[in-house]
Amino acid sequence: MPRRLAPLVAVVLSSLVSLSLAAKPRARDLGVPFEGKPGPLNAITDVAGVEVGQTTLIRGDGQLVVGAGPVRTGVTAIFPRGKATDAGVFAGWFSLNGNGEMTGTAWVEESGILEGPIALTNTHSVGVVRDAIIRWQVAHRPRDNRVWWSLPVVGETWDGWLNDINGFHVKPEHVFAALDSAKTGPVDEGNVGGGTGMVCHEFKGGIGTSSRLISGYTIGVLVQANYGLRHQLLIAGVPVGREIPDGQIRPDEAGSILIIIATDAPLLPHQLKRLARRASLGLARMGSSSGDGSGDLFLAFSTGNTIPTERKKAGDVKMLVTEDMSPLFEATVQATEEAITNALVAAETMTGVDGHTVVALPHDKLRAVLKKYGRLVEK
Amino acid sequence: MPRRLAPLVAVVLSSLVSLSLAAKPRARDLGVPFEGKPGPLNAITDVAGVEVGQTTLIRGDGQLVVGAGPVRTGVTAIFPRGKATDAGVFAGWFSLNGNGEMTGTAWVEESGILEGPIALTNTHSVGVVRDAIIRWQVAHRPRDNRVWWSLPVVGETWDGWLNDINGFHVKPEHVFAALDSAKTGPVDEGNVGGGTGMVCHEFKGGIGTSSRLISGYTIGVLVQANYGLRHQLLIAGVPVGREIPDGQIRPDEAGSILIIIATDAPLLPHQLKRLARRASLGLARMGSSSGDGSGDLFLAFSTGNTIPTERKKAGDVKMLVTEDMSPLFEATVQATEEAITNALVAAETMTGVDGHTVVALPHDKLRAVLKKYGRLVEK
Amino acid sequence: MPRRLAPLVAVVLSSLVSLSLAAKPRARDLGVPFEGKPGPLNAITDVAGVEVGQTTLIRGDGQLVVGAGPVRTGVTAIFPRGKATDAGVFAGWFSLNGNGEMTGTAWVEESGILEGPIALTNTHSVGVVRDAIIRWQVAHRPRDNRVWWSLPVVGETWDGWLNDINGFHVKPEHVFAALDSAKTGPVDEGNVGGGTGMVCHEFKGGIGTSSRLISGYTIGVLVQANYGLRHQLLIAGVPVGREIPDGQIRPDEAGSILIIIATDAPLLPHQLKRLARRASLGLARMGSSSGDGSGDLFLAFSTGNTIPTERKKAGDVKMLVTEDMSPLFEATVQATEEAITNALVAAETMTGVDGHTVVALPHDKLRAVLKKYGRLVEK
Amino acid sequence: MPRRLAPLVAVVLSSLVSLSLAAKPRARDLGVPFEGKPGPLNAITDVAGVEVGQTTLIRGDGQLVVGAGPVRTGVTAIFPRGKATDAGVFAGWFSLNGNGEMTGTAWVEESGILEGPIALTNTHSVGVVRDAIIRWQVAHRPRDNRVWWSLPVVGETWDGWLNDINGFHVKPEHVFAALDSAKTGPVDEGNVGGGTGMVCHEFKGGIGTSSRLISGYTIGVLVQANYGLRHQLLIAGVPVGREIPDGQIRPDEAGSILIIIATDAPLLPHQLKRLARRASLGLARMGSSSGDGSGDLFLAFSTGNTIPTERKKAGDVKMLVTEDMSPLFEATVQATEEAITNALVAAETMTGVDGHTVVALPHDKLRAVLKKYGRLVEK
Repeated sequence: MPRRLAPLVAVVLSSLVSLSLAAKPRARDLGVPFEGKPGPLNAITDVAGVEVGQTTLIRGDGQLVVGAGPVRTGVTAIFPRGKATDAGVFAGWFSLNGNGEMTGTAWVEESGILEGPIALTNTHSVGVVRDAIIRWQVAHRPRDNRVWWSLPVVGETWDGWLNDINGFHVKPEHVFAALDSAKTGPVDEGNVGGGTGMVCHEFKGGIGTSSRLISGYTIGVLVQANYGLRHQLLIAGVPVGREIPDGQIRPDEAGSILIIIATDAPLLPHQLKRLARRASLGLARMGSSSGDGSGDLFLAFSTGNTIPTERKKAGDVKMLVTEDMSPLFEATVQATEEAITNALVAAETMTGVDGHTVVALPHDKLRAVLKKYGRLVEK
Repeated sequence: MPRRLAPLVAVVLSSLVSLSLAAKPRARDLGVPFEGKPGPLNAITDVAGVEVGQTTLIRGDGQLVVGAGPVRTGVTAIFPRGKATDAGVFAGWFSLNGNGEMTGTAWVEESGILEGPIALTNTHSVGVVRDAIIRWQVAHRPRDNRVWWSLPVVGETWDGWLNDINGFHVKPEHVFAALDSAKTGPVDEGNVGGGTGMVCHEFKGGIGTSSRLISGYTIGVLVQANYGLRHQLLIAGVPVGREIPDGQIRPDEAGSILIIIATDAPLLPHQLKRLARRASLGLARMGSSSGDGSGDLFLAFSTGNTIPTERKKAGDVKMLVTEDMSPLFEATVQATEEAITNALVAAETMTGVDGHTVVALPHDKLRAVLKKYGRLVEK
Repeated sequence: MPRRLAPLVAVVLSSLVSLSLAAKPRARDLGVPFEGKPGPLNAITDVAGVEVGQTTLIRGDGQLVVGAGPVRTGVTAIFPRGKATDAGVFAGWFSLNGNGEMTGTAWVEESGILEGPIALTNTHSVGVVRDAIIRWQVAHRPRDNRVWWSLPVVGETWDGWLNDINGFHVKPEHVFAALDSAKTGPVDEGNVGGGTGMVCHEFKGGIGTSSRLISGYTIGVLVQANYGLRHQLLIAGVPVGREIPDGQIRPDEAGSILIIIATDAPLLPHQLKRLARRASLGLARMGSSSGDGSGDLFLAFSTGNTIPTERKKAGDVKMLVTEDMSPLFEATVQATEEAITNALVAAETMTGVDGHTVVALPHDKLRAVLKKYGRLVEK
Repeated sequence: MPRRLAPLVAVVLSSLVSLSLAAKPRARDLGVPFEGKPGPLNAITDVAGVEVGQTTLIRGDGQLVVGAGPVRTGVTAIFPRGKATDAGVFAGWFSLNGNGEMTGTAWVEESGILEGPIALTNTHSVGVVRDAIIRWQVAHRPRDNRVWWSLPVVGETWDGWLNDINGFHVKPEHVFAALDSAKTGPVDEGNVGGGTGMVCHEFKGGIGTSSRLISGYTIGVLVQANYGLRHQLLIAGVPVGREIPDGQIRPDEAGSILIIIATDAPLLPHQLKRLARRASLGLARMGSSSGDGSGDLFLAFSTGNTIPTERKKAGDVKMLVTEDMSPLFEATVQATEEAITNALVAAETMTGVDGHTVVALPHDKLRAVLKKYGRLVEK
């Protein structure tokens, strides 16, 4: 059994990473062209009320000793209405390729409602994160423990190339730290939270986010990007992967992407399923063909309605006319594309298990390739 | 190509059948016990606004001559808000066993909205009925034909044991007659409309309907029953099929059931999918195991909301709290069970193709069996 | 944090329960009539290779002290091909009402393959059970920890009426004990394993099993029954719930049922989804209308094919002709109905949290009611 | 009621179009870069056994007179194993956005089997095409008409901008002509068959096809392309739509795409659903965000297995190992992208209803734009 990393340490680590990220350029700062208009933070937190908290676990180097490390993993938590409440939001989900886990989706599908936070972590820590969320809810919410139940939503991607995934290094206290630290404002990207040890198109991947303003509403996207082969990578339609072949690591498609979509547009559950499905199209623009080994699971929620809870009474909700969905679809595709690109731009070269090194997408080469193909946005 | 039966004749036939049905007992008149409280008509038309129209085609006897008959078929049309409007209703559907056709369901699933009527007919007449509905809409609704489209919902079950199904005897005018004759009030049951030539548990089947009053709302069910083997038939939990073995015709499970559920409860599309799924449970109580050859397709709609249509504006709708769904589920199961039993009780012995005879469920024997098992409701 | 119950104690408890169960009558011993022919054990283990292991946790009495007890819970594990292998089986699943959790289903749906065991537990212990299965696999299977991943299938129902569910009393060692104790042969029923604290139609519920021999194949069903209101309960079509009103506890439908179906018939994944859906129909015959609060999740698997694993080569599998599915559907309905009835018959009166008592279905009254309705099978 | 265009005329028309197409360049002839290796025909007919037949109806000009024209529509038929047989193939389908119709999908989903041809036509002619296929089957196949049924697969997109869609100009004889003329070999593209009156990214659209050779198998794609706004159009990742703004016609996303995928790889039904889902990703690379008005319905079938039909016996089929699916996914994405581009390249400027003109994608400008962005493949 490994020593436990104190939650304090994790939070400190997370804060340090946050500081270092603050000055880092994002994809559009590098001149990557995108369509649509982003919100002020260009992040999922542009949707009012959404809070994100992350715990990053980086510890040890060298040969894999299962249970001892190296450790390159973490937890990312998203509260649709902030950490002070589990009040429900309408939600819908979609599995583009189900080689992955997202707990809680049977009830999201059935009820159209998501209660409580969403958490993202590594494949083998889904269970501990799930139950820890319940523990946290037991501790933080006044409940009648005789009648209450919870079915938390926890997704995963696999970080075993860099992380001692079978060492089970995510502990309940790391989950609590992610939940407790959730906040509005800018979101750390790259090697943080659930994205710490992830790999994307054989470059270092991780957490990325983006947003769009459309039709008076905001759409925010957060991804945990861990999918794809190098040769497939497109950025702004340009074959960046073929142009930058350095540092390839995988013979086979392996890895996954989680995509969370938030909006304040008052969409009903069946409309949110449609939004979730559009994440596929943003992912496709990056060159993914959603390989067999990919857990490409997407969830969309809306803060635009208060879910009626009064029994024996029909409650009021709002909805968009079906014909007004198209611009939101387009914005979702755009924000997904930019969130993934942001993850690639933010992530830094990392060495983990057995000295495996995954290189960052080189910013200068990216700019050079975009320029070569007439797609660089010069400032 | 067969001679065409004039629509006038069809309407006359339909009216005659209607007269003869008026005096017939229904299942609860015979002492079959049911749970829950039915509406005044104990029919789908207890849901305000719902109108039903039927065309019944019965013509010829003797050996099958494809294209010439015998003819035992028809069309049943259901307008959620009456024939004067195609204004949408929220809807959801479920396929318990998809050996059947229900057109228009891709858009019901996507948009959660049903526009226009639902029609039920035989398997090989789905196309003519579908296109005829569009023709009727073109003729009856003021449209801009340059931008308008329609995706009608038409379901089917197979009546080839009694009907010359490959003679394609349903013509557009028969569809128009069913649509034009749609009305509120009692609904003809048994050998009428789309149910004319149907067989249920190897007894004569067809159209049946029922309703329930629950939580201040009404739930109405209409079935086109054409499924099941004799030995499987349960009525009020009693093994009626094993007790009345006379007149069996099928070695294999073959046949299907369409179940349409209407309600004025303000349910959202995802909630209506849940209602549609419950039709399975009512069907199961009749003893069905939903055989491989069965097209068991169910659709639920709600008149309880006006669908917002104003663009660029969030519209208002109402919904039930999720915890308030359970009584509606139970009522749906009950009404489905009674609607199927009503179809069996109303249908009369029919001889069709090649002299095939399908016997009616004998009312006296049914009562005797119910009595034997302590389930007869004595008046 | 609660003291941990040693795994040894758990196993001992489980064995004691096993002994006490050995002499207990099952539903057909009491004269409940069922259709179809059961296998020699009338259990899921009639399907060759299937092994079941259970850990039962019963400890403490009196007032609820979260973390201290009373404890009435456990784990039931099912290995499709025995505990010595994780070799895959084809599988399919269905959610009749998704107010529940079954992890691992995204990959079952996508790949049609189930690898490793299925485990059943309480709602708030899904996470610990899931991760513990991975730990157990890491320990027991030779793996390359750098490339291997697992997405275990763990289902749940809610036992908080009797069990301190927010005390999180299921620990990894209890999971290991269930996995390690898996065996062929008779399966303990009633208050055991994941079913320990469950309630069914307001009688004591829990684990039940049954099987059918059909078309040269075996179908086995195991349920964790925790659903339904008293008035809804039907046994063999008889309104047993209304006839035995004693000891009701719930105003609202709440609770769930997990149904696992095993077969040696060589069914493809899409055919297994069809089988899983039929569990709904067996459940319906018991009177359930699958209430809003119910997590009615069903999974079917087949041991009838070895899953091809050799890369770059088309592998051979067998399948049944679609028309041959109907008898298997009927057998699944029958075995589901009997498995639930067996759970009710086996479970014994239990007192748990705050002195809540849930009474067993009284065998003598059951026989009397069946006799009243002419359904008792006299020996 | 309009005069009927004799089927002979239709076939002649179709043949003339075929001649004129023979000399036309396809997308890769113009220097559009594509990934992967196409088959000898670069068409769906590279999959052995697949036959395609098309009827093209072009008649009249000027103002719309409903029932009189102008007529710009047709039928495209695809036989998975050639027109001489209805022997089944495994199949799976996916709805990316369900604002459309594809009949027969309930049974494809349930059984995993497609029997008979697939036909593509306009939205308001789905019914006539469906029933006409049954008539054709009745006439051409020896059947026992007392037991036989058919559930044809017919898809549609909306051509009302150019075609008198509410005139119902597709007649049974046009369907027969398409079925009778089905053949292997090159497939006409552009303004032919069901694609005659279609519009794609506000350029003239229609039928397009492509194929890929991968892992020893062939994947063929045929599209009926009628979707998208101009500004969204990407070709090879290049923003072609923004660069060629001429001739835009639509303020709103409206229109749809049908994508049919054929393969000789021995895939099981659940694997074919996965393939069908990948069509989404090829469509996304063209810039689509699958707007609300889009019926984006995809169906994949495999000729790689003979479907067992002998009763009471487990039949043999072959399957690919799940890990071997990824290259097929990638090939499907590639072939979809090229098939759509081929439709755009082949389609010629057309004037229809009310003088509406939809311009062809100008080949010279396309080449110039590709060159500008460094993506033109020079010969």
